[in-house]
Amino acid sequence: MNKTKGTEIAALGEFGLINRLTKPLSKRNNSTLMAAGDDAAVIDLGDEVLLLSSDMLTEGVDFDLSYFPLKHLGYKVVVRGVNDILAMNGRPEQIVISLGVSAKISVEALDELYEGMEAACAELGVDIVGGDTTASMNGLIINISVVGRAKKESVVYRSGAKEHDLICITSNLGAAYMGLHLLEREKRVLKDIANPEPKFAGHEYLLERYLKPRARQNVLKALEEQGIRPTSMIDLSDGLASDLRQICLASQCGARIYLERIPIARQTTELAEEMHIDPVIAALNGGEDHELMFTVPIDMQEKIMALGLVDVIGHITREEAGVVLVTPDGEGIALKAQAFDR
Amino acid sequence: MNKTKGTEIAALGEFGLINRLTKPLSKRNNSTLMAAGDDAAVIDLGDEVLLLSSDMLTEGVDFDLSYFPLKHLGYKVVVRGVNDILAMNGRPEQIVISLGVSAKISVEALDELYEGMEAACAELGVDIVGGDTTASMNGLIINISVVGRAKKESVVYRSGAKEHDLICITSNLGAAYMGLHLLEREKRVLKDIANPEPKFAGHEYLLERYLKPRARQNVLKALEEQGIRPTSMIDLSDGLASDLRQICLASQCGARIYLERIPIARQTTELAEEMHIDPVIAALNGGEDHELMFTVPIDMQEKIMALGLVDVIGHITREEAGVVLVTPDGEGIALKAQAFDR
Repeated sequence: MNKTKGTEIAALGEFGLINRLTKPLSKRNNSTLMAAGDDAAVIDLGDEVLLLSSDMLTEGVDFDLSYFPLKHLGYKVVVRGVNDILAMNGRPEQIVISLGVSAKISVEALDELYEGMEAACAELGVDIVGGDTTASMNGLIINISVVGRAKKESVVYRSGAKEHDLICITSNLGAAYMGLHLLEREKRVLKDIANPEPKFAGHEYLLERYLKPRARQNVLKALEEQGIRPTSMIDLSDGLASDLRQICLASQCGARIYLERIPIARQTTELAEEMHIDPVIAALNGGEDHELMFTVPIDMQEKIMALGLVDVIGHITREEAGVVLVTPDGEGIALKAQAFDR
Repeated sequence: MNKTKGTEIAALGEFGLINRLTKPLSKRNNSTLMAAGDDAAVIDLGDEVLLLSSDMLTEGVDFDLSYFPLKHLGYKVVVRGVNDILAMNGRPEQIVISLGVSAKISVEALDELYEGMEAACAELGVDIVGGDTTASMNGLIINISVVGRAKKESVVYRSGAKEHDLICITSNLGAAYMGLHLLEREKRVLKDIANPEPKFAGHEYLLERYLKPRARQNVLKALEEQGIRPTSMIDLSDGLASDLRQICLASQCGARIYLERIPIARQTTELAEEMHIDPVIAALNGGEDHELMFTVPIDMQEKIMALGLVDVIGHITREEAGVVLVTPDGEGIALKAQAFDR
């Protein structure tokens, strides 16, 4: 087909496009509680709700099979998908997988992919309940849809953050982004060499953060045990800056986060400096962290610190104050919209 | 990436591949009633069940945008997806759409796609509740996941067919296949012509059957009103021969269908003869009919005929008798396994 006439999608950005496509949609079933606009759709089941999300990954865009082992890819796909349910404070239960497969992909390659998916499912207590396979003209395509459940009153939306709430994240940021950069660098450097020996020594942590992200069910469990209910929550997949903005947009609030409180691993900083990348940019805009960010009322401060599982990086403000990054010398930098829409 | 080492997928076929991938999967949630092996997964909700299915389509394999209008494509994607829930005798309620979009696709093109999807959703009473968009290196990719519900006792599986049951289908077959052949022919013939004028006059019925298949909710509603409960059911998407074999495999039975009872539209026969295609092959193996095939107990014969909505094409036999097509002169042709696995 020739190019279709009209506006390029890049002109709208992903969020703009999704808004445009989903805005005119009608609601015909009473069971549809929440459609687009959060990590997962929310469907009424009576006392409980069903959570439903979908995530597509395409080869050459979302992953590169020349360095992404298929077993790890399968594991990561499941963690990514399940994270959307965790970010609603739900219990992931079932997934369906659709695969688009080009002629170059062997049966054994798909066995490996499924082995990784099953490994993640075993850890997370999730069942693969079906799917679909079709041919693809070009490379591997993976779509994962995840079904989860939650008690109606325990669902956490993006929209519940309130002024003074604390902003918490479940791990240091930017490591996955540097892991990806390292893999891309070694691929470039070694592309014309017959028996390439990529130099990964000392960077195992960054590679693992990119290739094998972990779901943070343990943090949600600890919060529940301590009676701490987040007021809002999101999966950190597009980068801290973008995802914090999503919470602020949905909650009609602003935020102040403090640069020196944003945790960045030593390995991330070292490699970023070696590669002339600002580690703060990696942490703010890198993306693919697949951690959770959530807000809790300020009176939970002691309890949340006592957990030892999260970092508090700032607090929620009134909407007029905007989304601001405070530098160590007290300067406030507005995190502008265009910085988020990658 | 270079070709991955090992067995080509074609050597297994789609069903073989799915069996291989899904066989070793574990079940960890009591709510998982049925995973792979039917039109949709079945998840326990108490009195009701949740039905969940997923369907991926890739450009150049499942559709050709040079002649498939995007609005029709959107409509068809939804009908295809919803059919998997109807084939379980469920009520489709929500869908999520993932899109993989290459640079050639404009925003307006996606508007049209969504317009078609919304049109189908409006007819079928279904809500689009979310989804995902990602970039694609090559063409458009669409994944639809559909959620439906049913009372536990009213779910119809592939596995319930019993000896002597009647085999029913909801429309004539092979028309969509001939519609596709016509579109492909005109594309070939006109490919070097500046202002092509494809010759579609007289073939509108076939084009509509391919481009805009209809969901058969009306048939299911009529069956319910008449108190007729199918013993087994499947979505006719891979062709009568293949899909009948799926029912027989799942139900551990055989089948006899009668050639002169398989409804084939006049338009299908005419174009097939013009194009030197056997219309029976189109009906048996063409695929993409997107009708329903189901079985009912033989004592329902009068009631089912009185509906005027279905054709009875044969009956279920014991497994040892195999799956047999009976010609008008009484000869029985075994429909062999290799004939189905396209």
